Amino acid sequence: MTGSFPRPGADPFTERTPRVVAARKLTRRAERDKTGRFLAEGVNAVEAALASGTVYELFVTERAAAAHAKLVSAAADSGVAVSLITDRAADGLSETVTPQGIVAVCALVDRPLATVLAGARLVVVLVDVAEPGNAGTVMRVADAAGADAVILAGDTVDPHNGKSVRAAAGSTFHVPLARERDTSAVLSALREAGLRTLAAHGYASLSLDEVTFDEPTAWIFGNEAHGLSETVLSAADEAVRIPLYGKAESLNLATAAAVCVYTSAMAAHRAR
Amino acid sequence: MTGSFPRPGADPFTERTPRVVAARKLTRRAERDKTGRFLAEGVNAVEAALASGTVYELFVTERAAAAHAKLVSAAADSGVAVSLITDRAADGLSETVTPQGIVAVCALVDRPLATVLAGARLVVVLVDVAEPGNAGTVMRVADAAGADAVILAGDTVDPHNGKSVRAAAGSTFHVPLARERDTSAVLSALREAGLRTLAAHGYASLSLDEVTFDEPTAWIFGNEAHGLSETVLSAADEAVRIPLYGKAESLNLATAAAVCVYTSAMAAHRAR
Repeated sequence: MTGSFPRPGADPFTERTPRVVAARKLTRRAERDKTGRFLAEGVNAVEAALASGTVYELFVTERAAAAHAKLVSAAADSGVAVSLITDRAADGLSETVTPQGIVAVCALVDRPLATVLAGARLVVVLVDVAEPGNAGTVMRVADAAGADAVILAGDTVDPHNGKSVRAAAGSTFHVPLARERDTSAVLSALREAGLRTLAAHGYASLSLDEVTFDEPTAWIFGNEAHGLSETVLSAADEAVRIPLYGKAESLNLATAAAVCVYTSAMAAHRAR
Repeated sequence: MTGSFPRPGADPFTERTPRVVAARKLTRRAERDKTGRFLAEGVNAVEAALASGTVYELFVTERAAAAHAKLVSAAADSGVAVSLITDRAADGLSETVTPQGIVAVCALVDRPLATVLAGARLVVVLVDVAEPGNAGTVMRVADAAGADAVILAGDTVDPHNGKSVRAAAGSTFHVPLARERDTSAVLSALREAGLRTLAAHGYASLSLDEVTFDEPTAWIFGNEAHGLSETVLSAADEAVRIPLYGKAESLNLATAAAVCVYTSAMAAHRAR
């Protein structure tokens, strides 16, 4: 179907069409791990996925095809299989409340740890992060701040989860990403790659505004409720807190990561 | 019932108990506006509400009363009416997926614009912000950064919405808050209060890392999808963009606000 979309006279795929059924299974992590594929939903994500060359197949509703005609025809022109689907089929492929009607089946984006750390000067590490939206938002922040890699360590949520991909708004396909269950192996790898490790911690004695950023840095953030373990805190080079000037006891994970990562990125760019 | 909780032998209130029915109506904005009351759910919010002296009444499930015994007895001791409720009643009072079983009926927190701006040196303004979670998260960021006021301008979501209160994690009761539908009146008031107005805008020519923060500053953030209008952008003293060092086209509202507000707060504190 290369270069021709929609196929003349073709009926849209329904939620019972085998290819849609197969794609829908990718909303489950086990199926993603088994097949090495995942779903990228929404215009930002699909655009970034197409640019990164990882798309196997693209599903669009009639409405989405009309709204994003240029994107869809560019996909078809580049050899991606594009198929029209019904609204109900699109609902089944969506993990969000408001399906956008445009979903790509993509190859998983994660790569080996050593590969993504080579030459890195700014790295963001999430340890045991539970919320898919947080993982995606932090990937977007890392991308915006020019991070060279994002590492998902320990029992962190799958970055290929639909909510994570949606929150990342395309950044899933922009920043080199690695996953490693063994958090101490991640810390060793960061050290071997010549990165100073800074663990974000609400009760650290060192405040963010006292840190200098003239060396390659890896930021480490912990679980939403429990933060980082003592093991990680003592293995890191420094624990760093965000100064709290008001009455709030903390920031949430995504905003804390934004403050830390951007403060270091802006300082590093100023120093150049 | 002052000082005694739970009342000996009392059955817990159910979802049909008139006081629970009345409280449940406060999940609707119209009812909040009419009665001047709202619900604060969760331990952080209830604790902050009690500290601010704005609580009329506290509802707790048996489980929550056991888990937060100190907080609950402190509330009863201070003269707040405390009532045990069933889990089902707690579900009805909750606007979140995981009810915490502890909900306070409080007085609305917003105050007149002129009152909250008096003497302010750091102010955060949201214009036409739609997502309650974003409003709450930005209030938490503003609180942490030591902001003197948060202004919700134009058609911005009600900060007394349950999702907003939850996301603010207590900051609803910490930072002086004003609401004003007339956004140009807000801009005039900021100017009259001696605040420089910085409008966050992705395509501004001035970058955040070029701005100095030695004068009182009001940050202005727009709607999640549409940003700020031309009218607001031209009325502000400066439009400021967050530098994007990677491939991401933008940050989301909450992380963008965190980066801008914290960059200015840390710079202002360093300059002191």
